[in-house]
Amino acid sequence: MALPRDYAEQPCSLARTLEIVGERWTLLIVRDAFYGARSFGEFADHLKIPRAVLTDRLNALVGADVLQKVAHGRRFHYELTPKGISLWPTVHALIQWGDEHYAPRGPRRLFLHAADEQLVDTGGVCTGCGQAIAPTDIIIKPGPGAEPAHAADDSVTVALREPHRLLQPLR
Amino acid sequence: MALPRDYAEQPCSLARTLEIVGERWTLLIVRDAFYGARSFGEFADHLKIPRAVLTDRLNALVGADVLQKVAHGRRFHYELTPKGISLWPTVHALIQWGDEHYAPRGPRRLFLHAADEQLVDTGGVCTGCGQAIAPTDIIIKPGPGAEPAHAADDSVTVALREPHRLLQPLR
Repeated sequence: MALPRDYAEQPCSLARTLEIVGERWTLLIVRDAFYGARSFGEFADHLKIPRAVLTDRLNALVGADVLQKVAHGRRFHYELTPKGISLWPTVHALIQWGDEHYAPRGPRRLFLHAADEQLVDTGGVCTGCGQAIAPTDIIIKPGPGAEPAHAADDSVTVALREPHRLLQPLR
Repeated sequence: MALPRDYAEQPCSLARTLEIVGERWTLLIVRDAFYGARSFGEFADHLKIPRAVLTDRLNALVGADVLQKVAHGRRFHYELTPKGISLWPTVHALIQWGDEHYAPRGPRRLFLHAADEQLVDTGGVCTGCGQAIAPTDIIIKPGPGAEPAHAADDSVTVALREPHRLLQPLR
C-alpha cells in the first residue's frame, strides 16, 4: 500500500496506523467486514462507492494483511485476518464517540455480549458480567437511533435489522 | 466543518465520526493535544505540515468543539474540550494497533497509570490495579521503540523524552 508522503516524517504508531486505515472509506469497509459483509457486492451496495475505488481499497487492505481473499464458489470473499480483527477496539471506539456526540436519538446499533445480552462498553467490557468480550462474542442489533425500514434497502442494511453476531457472514 | 460529500449516505456513527476526525492530519493534531502541545508553533514544529493546512485543521476542530481556543498572553492556545478528551479511547486504540503491528522494536511510547506506573491496556484499564484510567491519570514515557535523541529536535519530541502526564502543557 502506498504510504501518503505527508505522514512520512511521523514515526508514531498512530501515524503508521493512519497510513493503513486513515484512508477515506477504509474504516467503513473494515466496519462492514465486522458486520458480516464479505462479497464485493455487499460492500458496494452498502457503501455506495464507485466500484473502482472499492476495488482499490479492498486490494490495499489485502496488501496490508487486514483482509484476506477467500475463494467462494467462482468468486472471492473478503474476510478479516487476525490483524484486521485486532482493529475492533478502534472501530468500536470511533462508533461510540459518534454515538455519544452525533446520535441525538441514541445509538443506531447496539453492541451486546451474546451470553447475557448486556451492552459492551467502550473498553470492550460487558456492563453485565464485567468480562472482556471478543468481537466474536458480540451481537449487533438495532438501537433507538436505527433508521426507519424504508430508509435503505441494500442487503447489508436489511440483514442488520435482525440481531446478528459480529464476523458471521450476513448470508 | 464541511462534510465530505462521499460520506453523506452513511448515517452510522463511524461515518459521522470520520467526518470530524477522519480528515488527514486531524487525529495527529488531537494526539499532540493529548501529549500537551498547545501553541500553534508546537503543532507546526512537531507535525511539519504547512501552516495554512494546520490553521485550517485547527479551526475545523474548534468548529467541531473538539478543541477550544484559550487566550494565552497575546496569542491563543488550543486545548481539548471534554468532547475532544472523549476521543482518548479512539486515539489510544489506534496507537496500540500500530504498536502491535508496526513497531518491531516495541512501542515508541508507553502509557502508564500515574499512581502505580503500570501499563494501561487497550480498554483503558490499568494492568496493575485493574481500574479504568482517565487520560488525566496517564503518564506517557519513552518505550523500547523510541527514536534516538538525534532523530528530531522539535520542542514536542524533546519534551516527551521525559515522562509527561497527558493533557498537561509541555511548557
